[in-house]
Amino acid sequence: MKDREFKISGKIVDVVSRTIRKGILHIEEGIIRRISYTNDVEDVFIVPGLVDSHMHIESSLLIPSRFASQAVKHGTLGLVTDPHEIANVLGEIGVDFMINDAQKVPLEIKFGVPSCVPATRHETSGFVLDSNIVESLLKRDEVVCLAEVMDFVGVIEEDLEVLKKIIACKKLGKKIDGHAPGLRGEDLKKYVASGISADHECSTMEEALEKIGLGMMIQIREGSAAKDFDSLYPLLESHPDKVMLCTDDLHPDDMEEKGHINYLIRKGLEKNLDLFSLLRAASYNPIHHYGLDLGLLQKGDQADFLVVEDLNDFNVKMVYRKGECICENGNATFNFSNEILLNNFSRKSISISDLHVEPENGKIKTIVVKDGDLLTDVENRTPKISNGNVISDTENDILKMVVMSRYDNGKPVIGFAKGFGYKKGAIAESIAHDSHNIIAVGTSDEELLHAINSLIDMKGGIVAVNDGERASVKLEVAGLMSNKRGDELLKEYNYLSNFASNLGSDFSSPFMTLAFMSLLVIPKLKLSDKGLFDVNQFKVVPLFEH
Amino acid sequence: MKDREFKISGKIVDVVSRTIRKGILHIEEGIIRRISYTNDVEDVFIVPGLVDSHMHIESSLLIPSRFASQAVKHGTLGLVTDPHEIANVLGEIGVDFMINDAQKVPLEIKFGVPSCVPATRHETSGFVLDSNIVESLLKRDEVVCLAEVMDFVGVIEEDLEVLKKIIACKKLGKKIDGHAPGLRGEDLKKYVASGISADHECSTMEEALEKIGLGMMIQIREGSAAKDFDSLYPLLESHPDKVMLCTDDLHPDDMEEKGHINYLIRKGLEKNLDLFSLLRAASYNPIHHYGLDLGLLQKGDQADFLVVEDLNDFNVKMVYRKGECICENGNATFNFSNEILLNNFSRKSISISDLHVEPENGKIKTIVVKDGDLLTDVENRTPKISNGNVISDTENDILKMVVMSRYDNGKPVIGFAKGFGYKKGAIAESIAHDSHNIIAVGTSDEELLHAINSLIDMKGGIVAVNDGERASVKLEVAGLMSNKRGDELLKEYNYLSNFASNLGSDFSSPFMTLAFMSLLVIPKLKLSDKGLFDVNQFKVVPLFEH
Repeated sequence: MKDREFKISGKIVDVVSRTIRKGILHIEEGIIRRISYTNDVEDVFIVPGLVDSHMHIESSLLIPSRFASQAVKHGTLGLVTDPHEIANVLGEIGVDFMINDAQKVPLEIKFGVPSCVPATRHETSGFVLDSNIVESLLKRDEVVCLAEVMDFVGVIEEDLEVLKKIIACKKLGKKIDGHAPGLRGEDLKKYVASGISADHECSTMEEALEKIGLGMMIQIREGSAAKDFDSLYPLLESHPDKVMLCTDDLHPDDMEEKGHINYLIRKGLEKNLDLFSLLRAASYNPIHHYGLDLGLLQKGDQADFLVVEDLNDFNVKMVYRKGECICENGNATFNFSNEILLNNFSRKSISISDLHVEPENGKIKTIVVKDGDLLTDVENRTPKISNGNVISDTENDILKMVVMSRYDNGKPVIGFAKGFGYKKGAIAESIAHDSHNIIAVGTSDEELLHAINSLIDMKGGIVAVNDGERASVKLEVAGLMSNKRGDELLKEYNYLSNFASNLGSDFSSPFMTLAFMSLLVIPKLKLSDKGLFDVNQFKVVPLFEH
Repeated sequence: MKDREFKISGKIVDVVSRTIRKGILHIEEGIIRRISYTNDVEDVFIVPGLVDSHMHIESSLLIPSRFASQAVKHGTLGLVTDPHEIANVLGEIGVDFMINDAQKVPLEIKFGVPSCVPATRHETSGFVLDSNIVESLLKRDEVVCLAEVMDFVGVIEEDLEVLKKIIACKKLGKKIDGHAPGLRGEDLKKYVASGISADHECSTMEEALEKIGLGMMIQIREGSAAKDFDSLYPLLESHPDKVMLCTDDLHPDDMEEKGHINYLIRKGLEKNLDLFSLLRAASYNPIHHYGLDLGLLQKGDQADFLVVEDLNDFNVKMVYRKGECICENGNATFNFSNEILLNNFSRKSISISDLHVEPENGKIKTIVVKDGDLLTDVENRTPKISNGNVISDTENDILKMVVMSRYDNGKPVIGFAKGFGYKKGAIAESIAHDSHNIIAVGTSDEELLHAINSLIDMKGGIVAVNDGERASVKLEVAGLMSNKRGDELLKEYNYLSNFASNLGSDFSSPFMTLAFMSLLVIPKLKLSDKGLFDVNQFKVVPLFEH
């Protein structure tokens, strides 16, 4: 806390008046007391802090405080996060953990209350966030919204639990975020009429314009999983007051290589988009939509801003929050210890007989997988049998895939996947949407056993094995996140990625793709710890097609 | 869930009408539909389930679901618990964990919201439960009261935070529990007038009668730490509607050897106290005071009861809850898996130089300790110096005692304690009231180092070492409780107790006594991770007396 006034000078980018003026910020007790305009200023730009309007911090593999130390380097000062991954594993305790951990750092990290936990009944999950718990969590000061209402069928069909959550949120005057890919016409009208006012699931301009027409804010998403910027960026100029920016999911290597929201500012400037509209989408709009406590470089505002040398690089030189420098030349100044250990992982080791598949007549329904795709196709394929056991067929790329509950010792469920391309080894992880059970794919039962049991020993993480060797990232917090610092985590992650990339697959995101294989709400054929799952029929089906 | 009616016959002990009548309970869908009276019944007594009206489950070293499996054998069906130990370590997350875990078992376990976390500012603690969090927790269905308001000074002096918590509780129509040892006269009147309606801190009849006179319920306490039954049992006959029974703290070996609330029923019957008054104190009174969901063997009540062969032994043959047998001949029928791992333990290993004490002129202020006593005395003693280091003096029983934060890597604080009597080895634990930092006492720096670093490796527990050997109980949940089953935990605990009892001390409760050495609110001299603490002056003082 500064006792007396201090000054920062530069080219002040005012997104409210849409001007850039050379001036001096006079800051006292964390507030911009006044701004004096003069030519004699530092040759830097002063811009508002950037906001990611929708993100799942768990995708970074870091806990919020650690993630913040990384994100701040890229000029991120605000974040609206939906902790539904950890909510599936640890319920309210998990959400509390995220909220408490975020309080440790000087970023404006606000939360949505996960609205759809569990996602379906066809998988073993850790916890349920019913309308009572959701209502209770919505009252927290750190909560700004009900998070992505994925159950649009529930909204349209007026499911009681869904309605209760929405009503509770409206009563508290907080926002309701949506998730409605492809929803149009009357269904969309009803969805929006219920009070849902933002959506990040838009892939086309047409869809976005229909949603904007009904009053929604569009969150243009560019992250590790989905990349919609190139489809939707024109909205930034056609409807500058109706857009926000977000990443949704952001993996450690992507943030390191590209950046965070500053990456989108850069992309936008490369396309010659209006600077103020770009910056407003990443500051003014989310700040006002969600009521975030971040200044906008106005007189009397809190002194939250970035010092950037070149707008086109958007390399952030310094970050100020409430008048304190919290990041300088890529180094966060805040630190903390205090590791809370939190996990839900009861599975004990399996034995090789647990991976046995008894042959039957007929072909096996094979899940056809594409790199980075949530959707899968189905093909009937001839099983490869050896010693009375259906095994992986590396020649035809039909590999054994396994899902088992991490919450109890239920029988592993075996399926077969075509597309990964592995020629040796196996990979396993405890990130498996939505319930985050254990999922693995591999070239032999022995390799699968090694991978899975290593994961179980670690009580969660991502593992790749081959011929006795192993690379892994331990994710001791809920089996989803590491307690480590971002730089340490990145090292481990890069080593693991590299190891896995030498096993024969040309997938650029094998772990992410594998994590979608248990996502039962996206067609066509998926794997649950309760069985092979036909999404269109919405039920478990047999492995063999007779 | 029974589909059709089933019957249980016996001598029905009706604590409402104060009668014992031979009869048959007709139970359907968990409710006693009717009672028919007849002589042809089983030769057993049917009694209401017993309630412990105030307990800290953490003292059992078991998580609530595991504790319930043990307690039910003794006829315990209800429990009002104050999770302030885990609240100090893990805040709201800790309280949530306890509430969620208790939901897994068919006992009526209800919660108080800890009202005094942290206890003081003179120690490093894990979390703060401010009035906002307290208010939020008070709204939970599983919460029946604001837990023991220990800060009676705060009540009397109308501290704002304390008042807010009390007001929030009254608004919700829930009870407020007290903790006011020795409070009398005008101060007591003000305390009670604020709305506090029960107290377990009574040691004399005089004190109890004054409190009853002002309208309070008295909870007669008999547990591992405090034993007030022999002083207060006459209240059970003089004021049968104003008393409840409780244990407060109950260690694993004590429950195994003596029992739970049934132990108090036995004790009372040995003293020829009225059976109905005894049972009402353990059923009717707490059920009505806290609004517990437990039946009292009335027609239309929920079918919650015990089948006991002999009232004087009070050996519980069967336990019924909502018409289901949940315990038979000492074996709980309910089971569950799902281990949540939760801890707050960031301390890294220490080195022997961390235990070094530089000699100064003068004597050392020595903490004089008595077995099982919260109170300590002070004596100035000559330090034993060896190689420029003040070390433990086993000949004169002046042993080095160490406290250090478990939440960060702050410098260990060293003091000296007289009274333990250890001749060899060292003991260390992460149970240390109130903040549960790391505390150890030992006969040499080497032994202390071994004990402390073992504890740190384990991330919490209780350890005893001697000459390279070690006995320990790992307490991975918050460094306070084990995830193990009660019988497994007891084995470990007994082994540890036995090991520690061969190190020279004749204390019957060395670990409990050690845990009080950091309790800064009880005089006279204590040890905090911030320094040697003079309780009467309420500040840190130097080790050497010049």
